[in-house]
Amino acid sequence: MAAEAPSPGLPGSLQAYAQLAQASLDPAIWRYLSEGDSAGNARALQQATLVPRPLRAVRGGHTRLQLLGQDLEHPFLLAPVAYQRLFHAEGECGSAMAAAAQGGQFLVSSLASQPLKHITQAVRDGGPPTQQGAPGPWFQLYWQGDRERTARLLQRALHAGCSAVVFTVDAPVKPSSLVLPQQVRAVNLEPAPLPAPGPGQVFDGWMAQAPQWSDLHWLRSQTQLPLLVKGLLHVEDALAALQAGCDGIVVSNHGGRVLAGAQTSLQSLGPIVKAVAGRVPVLLDSGVRSGRDAFVALAHGASAVLLGRPYLWGLAAHGALGVAHVLRLVRDELEMHMALCGCARLGDIGPHCLGMPPPGP
Amino acid sequence: MAAEAPSPGLPGSLQAYAQLAQASLDPAIWRYLSEGDSAGNARALQQATLVPRPLRAVRGGHTRLQLLGQDLEHPFLLAPVAYQRLFHAEGECGSAMAAAAQGGQFLVSSLASQPLKHITQAVRDGGPPTQQGAPGPWFQLYWQGDRERTARLLQRALHAGCSAVVFTVDAPVKPSSLVLPQQVRAVNLEPAPLPAPGPGQVFDGWMAQAPQWSDLHWLRSQTQLPLLVKGLLHVEDALAALQAGCDGIVVSNHGGRVLAGAQTSLQSLGPIVKAVAGRVPVLLDSGVRSGRDAFVALAHGASAVLLGRPYLWGLAAHGALGVAHVLRLVRDELEMHMALCGCARLGDIGPHCLGMPPPGP
Amino acid sequence: MAAEAPSPGLPGSLQAYAQLAQASLDPAIWRYLSEGDSAGNARALQQATLVPRPLRAVRGGHTRLQLLGQDLEHPFLLAPVAYQRLFHAEGECGSAMAAAAQGGQFLVSSLASQPLKHITQAVRDGGPPTQQGAPGPWFQLYWQGDRERTARLLQRALHAGCSAVVFTVDAPVKPSSLVLPQQVRAVNLEPAPLPAPGPGQVFDGWMAQAPQWSDLHWLRSQTQLPLLVKGLLHVEDALAALQAGCDGIVVSNHGGRVLAGAQTSLQSLGPIVKAVAGRVPVLLDSGVRSGRDAFVALAHGASAVLLGRPYLWGLAAHGALGVAHVLRLVRDELEMHMALCGCARLGDIGPHCLGMPPPGP
Amino acid sequence: MAAEAPSPGLPGSLQAYAQLAQASLDPAIWRYLSEGDSAGNARALQQATLVPRPLRAVRGGHTRLQLLGQDLEHPFLLAPVAYQRLFHAEGECGSAMAAAAQGGQFLVSSLASQPLKHITQAVRDGGPPTQQGAPGPWFQLYWQGDRERTARLLQRALHAGCSAVVFTVDAPVKPSSLVLPQQVRAVNLEPAPLPAPGPGQVFDGWMAQAPQWSDLHWLRSQTQLPLLVKGLLHVEDALAALQAGCDGIVVSNHGGRVLAGAQTSLQSLGPIVKAVAGRVPVLLDSGVRSGRDAFVALAHGASAVLLGRPYLWGLAAHGALGVAHVLRLVRDELEMHMALCGCARLGDIGPHCLGMPPPGP
Repeated sequence: MAAEAPSPGLPGSLQAYAQLAQASLDPAIWRYLSEGDSAGNARALQQATLVPRPLRAVRGGHTRLQLLGQDLEHPFLLAPVAYQRLFHAEGECGSAMAAAAQGGQFLVSSLASQPLKHITQAVRDGGPPTQQGAPGPWFQLYWQGDRERTARLLQRALHAGCSAVVFTVDAPVKPSSLVLPQQVRAVNLEPAPLPAPGPGQVFDGWMAQAPQWSDLHWLRSQTQLPLLVKGLLHVEDALAALQAGCDGIVVSNHGGRVLAGAQTSLQSLGPIVKAVAGRVPVLLDSGVRSGRDAFVALAHGASAVLLGRPYLWGLAAHGALGVAHVLRLVRDELEMHMALCGCARLGDIGPHCLGMPPPGP
Repeated sequence: MAAEAPSPGLPGSLQAYAQLAQASLDPAIWRYLSEGDSAGNARALQQATLVPRPLRAVRGGHTRLQLLGQDLEHPFLLAPVAYQRLFHAEGECGSAMAAAAQGGQFLVSSLASQPLKHITQAVRDGGPPTQQGAPGPWFQLYWQGDRERTARLLQRALHAGCSAVVFTVDAPVKPSSLVLPQQVRAVNLEPAPLPAPGPGQVFDGWMAQAPQWSDLHWLRSQTQLPLLVKGLLHVEDALAALQAGCDGIVVSNHGGRVLAGAQTSLQSLGPIVKAVAGRVPVLLDSGVRSGRDAFVALAHGASAVLLGRPYLWGLAAHGALGVAHVLRLVRDELEMHMALCGCARLGDIGPHCLGMPPPGP
Repeated sequence: MAAEAPSPGLPGSLQAYAQLAQASLDPAIWRYLSEGDSAGNARALQQATLVPRPLRAVRGGHTRLQLLGQDLEHPFLLAPVAYQRLFHAEGECGSAMAAAAQGGQFLVSSLASQPLKHITQAVRDGGPPTQQGAPGPWFQLYWQGDRERTARLLQRALHAGCSAVVFTVDAPVKPSSLVLPQQVRAVNLEPAPLPAPGPGQVFDGWMAQAPQWSDLHWLRSQTQLPLLVKGLLHVEDALAALQAGCDGIVVSNHGGRVLAGAQTSLQSLGPIVKAVAGRVPVLLDSGVRSGRDAFVALAHGASAVLLGRPYLWGLAAHGALGVAHVLRLVRDELEMHMALCGCARLGDIGPHCLGMPPPGP
Repeated sequence: MAAEAPSPGLPGSLQAYAQLAQASLDPAIWRYLSEGDSAGNARALQQATLVPRPLRAVRGGHTRLQLLGQDLEHPFLLAPVAYQRLFHAEGECGSAMAAAAQGGQFLVSSLASQPLKHITQAVRDGGPPTQQGAPGPWFQLYWQGDRERTARLLQRALHAGCSAVVFTVDAPVKPSSLVLPQQVRAVNLEPAPLPAPGPGQVFDGWMAQAPQWSDLHWLRSQTQLPLLVKGLLHVEDALAALQAGCDGIVVSNHGGRVLAGAQTSLQSLGPIVKAVAGRVPVLLDSGVRSGRDAFVALAHGASAVLLGRPYLWGLAAHGALGVAHVLRLVRDELEMHMALCGCARLGDIGPHCLGMPPPGP
């Protein structure tokens, strides 16, 4: 796999990947991939203006970083997305292999459609052969209704070799209406318990199975691996997560799929970064569509970003090769923005690269 | 009537109800229902952003409240709308019955098209059989040109069993151009006195019959029932209403039907809530189209909201059953937003659930 | 002429008048009437929000005012517009007669297409027969290149019976490209002197004939009549006009016809009103399209407004009768807004009637 | 050449020139000329509002200025644009001759398609015959990868008679995708060295050949001519350029061609003008499309502006004559705005001519 010299005929832009993906997917699956209110997040990122900083010494610059003890070639993590066999037969294994090949990380969804063991193996296969013991993927953990079920799922992930846990708290309700094809399901989960029927569908149904802060404290005691919380937008909640001993925070509004009109990730990022004050890394999820978006997020204080829909366009279009190429495209664009703004390293990116709001329409 | 398990075939969303209503109504009546400049109110509510607050304990949450001594299952009151037999043969009785069945309240318009006695009876029929003495509907009182006529109308409402009076002051002029069908009229009113013709149609015509602050003081002396004033947008006027001994304030710009380009209800709400400082409940009218809107209003300090057009879509589409189902839909959505924002009770909703303004278009 | 009981068949709104005018005018003339960048002015007025103030005592309210010693029934003055025979055979005489019939004032353009004597006579014919000596129209004075020619024009206006002088300083350059029909011309002017050709068309051509502050001081010495300056947008210029002994200021950007993207009249109004501090009346020109607009202007401190295009729609559609009816329509709308905002007199209108900016689109 | 009395049949507006240019150019060349994100710059200029200042003495006004020791008739410099033979057979010589004929300056691109000697000669031919020794054009210098190659290019420009050096630092990456016709090439450059291939295309490829601040200090030591830096948007960078001994600053985001969503030139202008505090002139590039735009830029503190696309429309449409006429059109419009805002000289233009932001859409 040679992402830096991609096969001729690969699309030249993310937009072209999106078109190819749409053409190759069943319309219902394309809608499922595209739904949600991520437009606000994307717009907030796109509206930020930049200030070029020419004449700075950026020769030999790079996009490498250390994140929770792991060495990464670039700050794009592949966001946890469910049921990836919907998009391509290679499924989660294809995405994981591409992330490893590009020196990045893959976040496995609790709703992965392939066995955790296979995905972990794909990471090893994708990484450079000379590297000993590339860390396994990160595991996105959804609460399983109670501690026993959740503990069993966590154990399966640890046993399969996952190297970090991303506890996702932003989607307790509102499952998608997509009817899954028979061969695609969440193979790593136990059968779901029947929800208790009752007058209060929300409070007595869904929320009765939702996790609480005490559960996060319990979860912290269940593993030595790095533990992140994904789905926080409020400063108080970020501080509470620190209090619970978390090792990182993923600012996210779940791509707008859960709560319409939620405050954008980018608006939450700045205040949370300020409050966290460097004690743990803060990552940005939701709305990242380009290398420029990542640059903007880092200028607002993010340590890394989660890339969602774009890599699934790559997966749908060309499987693992497409994912790897998408990663290469966004990384190239990030590098170009770093160069134009005079940043040789990720740590050089900051508010001094941001301009005033653009003039109105 | 079983709103929690609605008959199969009921529309699944307010939008679907609106479409069904439009299809089933005479175009002139649909226009009458849709006219006015409520867009500003609705937009202000929709543009507010929310901040999810996961991991909070909301199990066993609910939407109950006490309002002016009455127990309500949820904070949606049915706004006073004239001539409801225009929309469905069940008319005001259908709406009143549905409100009672859902544990809410109905506000009878002075321009109701059915006798007050019948509407009060419908409330008793709609409420749960085990409950003794459900309070009668609230009566929306329009000034009748002078105190004598107004007093007689008030007495009719009290005699029929209404349980509160909502004095509406926001529509002295500009009657609709709808020509009523012969069988639909304001059956609870005396024949209108002929307006005095003259050069000053506004000041010497309409406004000569409009109420003044002194009339509100007089009205206060006419009844022991809770008295609310509906149609205030200015802080000074809210304080003057308190001074006059009112028990509640309904912030409203009459759905934009009276004064185009009026300040939105939501913009007025915050300053009025602050000035009133909890002495009486403040309700929001105009622009509420969803459970999310109600959540936003409550986060800005409203105690409850008046629901207008959406329940008339339900009435037009399916009579009382449609109204009850619409109430269930908005209540479910309110519950979901409470759950996502970590609010187990209405009192938990507040500014901490509100985010920054969204990025521009 | 009975504007209060207009002949059946008159249009019911300004919009209908605009349509009728467009249908009845030569397309080139309609374009000439419609051109310019008045949209900014109109938008600024329309975007202002209002706060209804119910329950106030407005019985017996009216729109009368005293302006520069003249009694007017309402604050709508007819703006000086050139060549009115382009729009209707009745021309300026029709407009002047309508203004008088409605108890208002007409501002005669220097470029009027009918003799000043005839226009003054039309004012007398239009006013109520019982009234002795209705004041003549106001004369809009354009600088005539030098003091001698200007003095002669002023004398003609005084001699014809004009009752005030509105010195217009906002249009020194950029004449319209409309080719006048042969029978329509500025009958009250001497033939124009030939402009001196030269390399600097602007500074040595047009501007060499433009008036200066010293000319205003000279002009002040030429008449005892009230003298207003029209076309100021800057606070410093308003104060300089006071210094020169002017009796009134007309804030105007000439309907946007001269300088594209000029600051709107409404934005200039507030600071100028504040600086002038009541020493002379401040009038608003440009963008007034309705009674609501006038109400907004008065709430920002204007003493009266100049109505432009709408009355020419009336003139084009129905001659003097149309103008009178248009005046009646905007006055009715102004009254309605006064009533809804609790203002019995023009002096009651103020910032307390204005709300916050509307929510975005 | 008689630009002040242009041949009949010349277009009457810049818009007409744009249309004519589009019609006469190969579509690929038109796209190349039109691409980039200059819309933000243009919009920022257009959205600024102006305040007319009538009655001021502007007779005998003019647009002359002294800039870096050179006398100019107006503040429009022709921006350095590559490969002008793409647009017209007269190429850079045509543009240079027109600039001289109009008493202005031409900035020769490093990527000029005609020999520097010829262009310098065209300046002498275009200038008024009585004038002795009109200064040669300014030379826009692109870094040539290393000091040796850059020094040789600079020497060629000095030898050809260029009178100032504009070191351009805003376009290190992202060459256009236009395939040049065989006969059009950068005739004044040495053949480009092959870029070193490698994994880091940005940092090890493009940026390895980009200049740094130390190179600017070196460049300063290589010539006594006035040295400007073009492509700065950040205050710190402007101050660093002063520190390096530069004689002027061109605020520019390269017409948006390099970094999408860069802060606009106009937004950067004010803070830089303030920080530079008159020590050197500050020029504005990017987005100037009219004389009004130039007026706005000068009101924000620019000493002069660079005109880009509009003069190439003129070149494409009518060669040198078209360029000269475009210059005349923008200068006339600048004069008109000066006159309307009461400015007799460029130095009279300032913030007092600027109004508040316009009302929203």
